[in-house]
Amino acid sequence: MLGVFQTTQKLRTSLRLLSRAGLPPVDLQVQLLLRGRCPQSATFSRELHLGPGGSASSPAAAPQRLPFSRVTVEDLTFFRKTLPGRAITDPDLVQSSNEDWLKSVRGSSEVLLRPQTTQEVSQILSYCQSRNLAVNPQGGNTGLVGGSVPVYDEIILSTSLMNNILSFDKISGILTCQAGCVLENLSLYLEERDYIMPLDLGAKGSCQIGGNVATNAGGLRLLRYGSLRGTVLGLEVVLADGQVLDCLSTLRKDNTGYDLKQLFIGSEGTLGVITAVSILCPRKPKSVNVVFLGCETFDQLLKSFQLCKGMLGEILSAFEFLDSECMRLLNTHLKLANPISDCPFYIVIETSGSDSDHDSQKLHNFLEEAMTSLLVTDGTVATEESKIKTLWSMRERVTEALTHDGFTYKYDISLPVERIYQLVTDMRQHLGERARSVVGYGHVGDGNLHLNITSSAKDPALLASIEPFIYEWTAKFQGSISAEHGLGLKKRNYIYYSKSRPTVAVMGKMKTLLDPKGILNPYKTLPDDLK
Amino acid sequence: MLGVFQTTQKLRTSLRLLSRAGLPPVDLQVQLLLRGRCPQSATFSRELHLGPGGSASSPAAAPQRLPFSRVTVEDLTFFRKTLPGRAITDPDLVQSSNEDWLKSVRGSSEVLLRPQTTQEVSQILSYCQSRNLAVNPQGGNTGLVGGSVPVYDEIILSTSLMNNILSFDKISGILTCQAGCVLENLSLYLEERDYIMPLDLGAKGSCQIGGNVATNAGGLRLLRYGSLRGTVLGLEVVLADGQVLDCLSTLRKDNTGYDLKQLFIGSEGTLGVITAVSILCPRKPKSVNVVFLGCETFDQLLKSFQLCKGMLGEILSAFEFLDSECMRLLNTHLKLANPISDCPFYIVIETSGSDSDHDSQKLHNFLEEAMTSLLVTDGTVATEESKIKTLWSMRERVTEALTHDGFTYKYDISLPVERIYQLVTDMRQHLGERARSVVGYGHVGDGNLHLNITSSAKDPALLASIEPFIYEWTAKFQGSISAEHGLGLKKRNYIYYSKSRPTVAVMGKMKTLLDPKGILNPYKTLPDDLK
Repeated sequence: MLGVFQTTQKLRTSLRLLSRAGLPPVDLQVQLLLRGRCPQSATFSRELHLGPGGSASSPAAAPQRLPFSRVTVEDLTFFRKTLPGRAITDPDLVQSSNEDWLKSVRGSSEVLLRPQTTQEVSQILSYCQSRNLAVNPQGGNTGLVGGSVPVYDEIILSTSLMNNILSFDKISGILTCQAGCVLENLSLYLEERDYIMPLDLGAKGSCQIGGNVATNAGGLRLLRYGSLRGTVLGLEVVLADGQVLDCLSTLRKDNTGYDLKQLFIGSEGTLGVITAVSILCPRKPKSVNVVFLGCETFDQLLKSFQLCKGMLGEILSAFEFLDSECMRLLNTHLKLANPISDCPFYIVIETSGSDSDHDSQKLHNFLEEAMTSLLVTDGTVATEESKIKTLWSMRERVTEALTHDGFTYKYDISLPVERIYQLVTDMRQHLGERARSVVGYGHVGDGNLHLNITSSAKDPALLASIEPFIYEWTAKFQGSISAEHGLGLKKRNYIYYSKSRPTVAVMGKMKTLLDPKGILNPYKTLPDDLK
Repeated sequence: MLGVFQTTQKLRTSLRLLSRAGLPPVDLQVQLLLRGRCPQSATFSRELHLGPGGSASSPAAAPQRLPFSRVTVEDLTFFRKTLPGRAITDPDLVQSSNEDWLKSVRGSSEVLLRPQTTQEVSQILSYCQSRNLAVNPQGGNTGLVGGSVPVYDEIILSTSLMNNILSFDKISGILTCQAGCVLENLSLYLEERDYIMPLDLGAKGSCQIGGNVATNAGGLRLLRYGSLRGTVLGLEVVLADGQVLDCLSTLRKDNTGYDLKQLFIGSEGTLGVITAVSILCPRKPKSVNVVFLGCETFDQLLKSFQLCKGMLGEILSAFEFLDSECMRLLNTHLKLANPISDCPFYIVIETSGSDSDHDSQKLHNFLEEAMTSLLVTDGTVATEESKIKTLWSMRERVTEALTHDGFTYKYDISLPVERIYQLVTDMRQHLGERARSVVGYGHVGDGNLHLNITSSAKDPALLASIEPFIYEWTAKFQGSISAEHGLGLKKRNYIYYSKSRPTVAVMGKMKTLLDPKGILNPYKTLPDDLK
């Protein structure tokens, strides 16, 4: 069955690698590659433009401005005294912090504060609460739901200058750092010490660990290392009244009272400002491999996932997918060639482990079984860095390809893994000819579907066909309408599709308890009807 | 260097296994064993006797009874109508639920309620709150800090009859069940389906998953699969007023609002009663190995841990230790023979993986390097089930051995891993001749030390030398005074050694928010000065 795989000159590399593991040569294109990824695409679709100029008709649009105070000359004097040279009011400098990276949401703040210490954050918040001034905490501003920029004139509190690593324990792998450390910088620091961060994101070059934690970022390593709720060991948080909450434990185990830090993970800056983080980091894997496979049906893809979990076991670190519609867009708009023969579904598998021979052998055994069982019909495994980039780009550049296909409606849905493609099929049938493309891709290992629908231009009638259909469908199967992006401004009013009213009511009570005046990141996360 | 290992007839087994992996035979006692553990010891030390008859002088003693209502005939009528045949008042039947399994704490409740459904729990709590009746939620009653039994006459609300498995997804490995399912029953259910629970405890034969979650149980698999904060995906909780909070998600990713379920994990039944749990379960490993090693210094032990993390990598599942004092007690009181030559420190390593040959080879490579680098001086690896039990019993029966050494003062401390043995050394020096034995053992991988001190009889002067010395020492190095056991009744007033006053104050506000009358598990977890 292995003969179905395409044979290329890369075979020699593969066979040498396989024979190092004591395996017989097979007729299989094997390109065992070092892990590498293409750079984040520079172009994005503009899916929504909200804020003061947005439409008030959509549940995603901004509500009326709440009666917070306006910034006065006296306020600016205080900020300038507290943060000498770091209270920015030059409109050109404030502008980039007013707009999100998708350029889909824009605020009108006139003040950008850049504290360097927890004490400064505390002074600012204490002052703002006493003056009833609203505050927009901001990390790397890479969010996708309009949570990281002001909606109106909220003061922007940036953590960018809080970028010191505080400690790293080489025995336990526990890193402690300020919230403004850029994820990629932390990764580079750790890799020199034979460790890695337990999370990896496309936006790693600019996103900050504080923002990652505040939004409970998922990313590419979740399947292997779990969510931040398990790996974040401690947080330092400044509450709305300026009080510093020290939960900056560096312990794997601590059962002394309620684990308050969990409240702030994923609360999108609405309950407190995270100023420092301690996080458990895994050892750097010695061996990383990438495979690209084709399947005839989504059922076979799911069976491949099960087989993979059993046979690759502890070395499996990613199991991603895209459909043939994604491949068509990659071919058409980005001129990317399919590395294997045409199939309805494609899988990207990544392994990482501590012994390259063992990993190669496990991968070989898995591929042989997957082929013999007719679960996969074609595939390629790669080893040169450039080839790895090519394979990963088939998954990672789908977003970019979509921007060339017209106006894009984007959804980030979590579902029981056996349901994730059914939503795409149902949506395609539901929309019929009204949509240009309906494509599905995402993280099979996490049950996370990225469903995207394009049309030639912005189309309210099409949108009305998509929503609330997609949210009702997701709710019917106990899914989440936001798997990893959060709610922010754009999705706050859709929360009831995934959470019960009593649950959301308790969230509202938590908000009132910790931020009684509601100054922290207003208009975000919680629905308008709670306010 | 490998010749230092003892040679026995088990060598043949080992060599066969190693040669299957294509490795050269070496002079090494290798007994690659299936994992197995000795049964939980039936005898325990009585470290504390509290409750109505206890001493009021210790911070661990019960406070005065709070002004809750007393159970009336009308109350009993309501309970009997709501739970036909399951509202127990026979003193003989209630008695075992009044006393903890260490027989160290005893309440005087006269009512034991055994609901079967969430709706029944809701009805009971709604009624109890309206009547101002205190409630003690109880799972398997295997806690170690007096959290699972009434202090006075609190109504005991047992989850024992809520023992149905609700669903299991074979693709994702997500299990959903009622809170009263016994951990071992869940393990057996899963093992038939090629999965395991992500946690394992000595008390698994009687502890319940709801209690595990309510106490954020650690146990033997934490090093590998992480804490329950990452593996628990959803909870159903009944609040003090009877309201059902449905956070029973079965998704790996869900970023819609605050993650309220985290509040209930580790809150010891003081914020709500957990009625159902969904949890992410790992695949059952195909291969499990156990090794017992000896080290000359704790520094070498820590270096072995680092080497182990690098070379065993993804297959490392336990790294436990005991000191020579533990070994002396095992020899003296239980007549257990040291399986290797005498050393100051002993390590128990467990591996679990998906390929037995690969695991054997990794273990071989690690052992060779550890011996060559002089990190370990002797060791044995085992394969027969009886030998595994023997090796594991050296670690697991230390508790039992201690009970034969006199009155035992027991501590469960979490510290930065490089500090854990320094506390034992400092304590030994601090106590001098006053203590009979000062022994250290525990989970190196989790930075969790079990420090035990024995004397011929209960000795208030000795206790005064131990406390607050041990808590101050732990606080000085940012440790936790309760790594995995929780605070319950016994340790509630020591919380300030590990948590700041502002943090504890916020905990108190959470308690007031969710349980305004304080009826849920009163006198537990939070310190008396908050009430």
